[in-house]
Amino acid sequence: MTATIPAGVENARDLVGPAVAAAVDRLSADVRTVAAYHLGLTEADGRPAGRPGAGKALRPALALLSARAAGAAPDRGVPAAAAVEFVHNFSLLHDDIMDGDTERRHRPTAWTVYGVGAAILAGDALLALAQDLLLEGPAPQGLWASRCLSAAVQRLIAGQGADLAFERRDDVTLDECRQMAGDKTAALMACACSIGAIYVGAPAVLAMGLAGFGAHVGLAFQLTDDLLGIWGAPELTGKPVRSDLRTRKKSLPVVAALASGTEPGRELGALLARPESLSEDELVRAAELVEEAGGRQWAESEADSALALAGKCLDETDMPADARAEFTGIAEFITARQW
Amino acid sequence: MTATIPAGVENARDLVGPAVAAAVDRLSADVRTVAAYHLGLTEADGRPAGRPGAGKALRPALALLSARAAGAAPDRGVPAAAAVEFVHNFSLLHDDIMDGDTERRHRPTAWTVYGVGAAILAGDALLALAQDLLLEGPAPQGLWASRCLSAAVQRLIAGQGADLAFERRDDVTLDECRQMAGDKTAALMACACSIGAIYVGAPAVLAMGLAGFGAHVGLAFQLTDDLLGIWGAPELTGKPVRSDLRTRKKSLPVVAALASGTEPGRELGALLARPESLSEDELVRAAELVEEAGGRQWAESEADSALALAGKCLDETDMPADARAEFTGIAEFITARQW
Repeated sequence: MTATIPAGVENARDLVGPAVAAAVDRLSADVRTVAAYHLGLTEADGRPAGRPGAGKALRPALALLSARAAGAAPDRGVPAAAAVEFVHNFSLLHDDIMDGDTERRHRPTAWTVYGVGAAILAGDALLALAQDLLLEGPAPQGLWASRCLSAAVQRLIAGQGADLAFERRDDVTLDECRQMAGDKTAALMACACSIGAIYVGAPAVLAMGLAGFGAHVGLAFQLTDDLLGIWGAPELTGKPVRSDLRTRKKSLPVVAALASGTEPGRELGALLARPESLSEDELVRAAELVEEAGGRQWAESEADSALALAGKCLDETDMPADARAEFTGIAEFITARQW
Repeated sequence: MTATIPAGVENARDLVGPAVAAAVDRLSADVRTVAAYHLGLTEADGRPAGRPGAGKALRPALALLSARAAGAAPDRGVPAAAAVEFVHNFSLLHDDIMDGDTERRHRPTAWTVYGVGAAILAGDALLALAQDLLLEGPAPQGLWASRCLSAAVQRLIAGQGADLAFERRDDVTLDECRQMAGDKTAALMACACSIGAIYVGAPAVLAMGLAGFGAHVGLAFQLTDDLLGIWGAPELTGKPVRSDLRTRKKSLPVVAALASGTEPGRELGALLARPESLSEDELVRAAELVEEAGGRQWAESEADSALALAGKCLDETDMPADARAEFTGIAEFITARQW
């Protein structure tokens, strides 16, 4: 199946894009060049990009929607939406260096174009800029939003730290892996789904309901992403088929298979432990083994449960019907299994 | 001449050390390991270090002193002092990667021990932690202090960005170089000298006077550091003699010499433009050329002017006499020319 981008995600880019561009303009020339390129505002030669920047604008859309859930006009959530987008991109800039990734959004990654040092700095600048945007806002909500974002940043860092540590271990448990995904992906999603509401002064019960929704959606999103990393069609994921097996990533379905105590799980472990790179036939076999060991079914069922829990959070939280419907639409869109 | 560490700097470590250690304990295990090592709290194998961590504790001492200048008990400035120390160390962690430095405080740098990725993350975590400490403090002063620190962080990043860009240029002007030093060194020093006062709710006129003092001292400190990088005794600087010429760093005295329009300045330019590494004789000659072109005298006289301006700021700012005397003592200590 393929899913259509919800209108809210497209609109968010129109609303948040100018705020993102204006904030980036505050950076010093050397740092701005790198940040603007990474955000898709400019090409590597400095020319304006002929298309709207900032990737899919998924997190800004959720942040704007959370302001609407609190009854505010969507534009009141713009600084919060831009702040979340900056934190997301701070982590992408740094993760691309750590993971040695050379391509992002169909372009060379910033560190390959400008060097590691410049890309580290651009990430640092976006992290600081995110907090600036929030703290310049109305008090005390700007401060609350800033602390909510900062908590998400610390979990993001903890998750990426665990992910790096996992690469050197062959005894990662499913609990550790789920914790890592909760930190690395779900925490910022929970923040995105609630920060707009917090920023416009929503009652805590609404903010907490939205954060709960976001945390479950974030986990479902990561599980789906991990499934796509093995079975996703390259033309939809933008990555080679079975790419996560190729890089031997300790993704959730893989760790579930390895920890299954089954014969296919053991065979998968032996295959992934080989020092040499895997042939196409071996990659096909590895994907089969994940499935035979129950890793695929476990991940699909976990994603379904997480989505159901997200829906429950949403149902129990009081908000306008159209905001609720859009939250549901975005959650379905980002957890659609496109293969 | 050699200078003795002022008592305030030693005492700051005793007061701020426990707060730094407690804040680092909040980080996730993987990230904490790297941060604790970098801060000197632990050895590379995880054992507690047998000595107080966090380098010279210069910036924390200034932050505590600024709280005292505002009439507060020094311990009230502790969160602000720890925050400044975290930002300083965030920048050291990242700069060591960018500059490829393998040794800091007589130990291997964090990235050489734990890898580039882990060191990037530890820096990110310290930056976020710095803001957390301030925003957990009393409102609204915690917020003001946070914005003051954030402004310094953005200048720090701008300065490091310019410094990286200078490496690829041979037409750096003295104005650009001074701007870079103002951003990279003086901004955080200005913040350190005022953030404790801001954090305890001092009037703006005191905070601004202290920030002005700190900005001038910061520039004098950078000029002195640049002079030591050429003429400093290795046993005092902890670096090889003439190390900045060896790495062809575009330090202030070097740029002053290059921009002097003199014959020695041109000769220096030709020498530093050679692709091969410089012999010891050539390094000695380069140092002579900086001096003959007036670069050394210019830097010494600029440092003296900056210190005089710092003293003027201090004189014009109302504070207890003992705080004033300690500020003066620290300024003299960190701008002492030890060779």
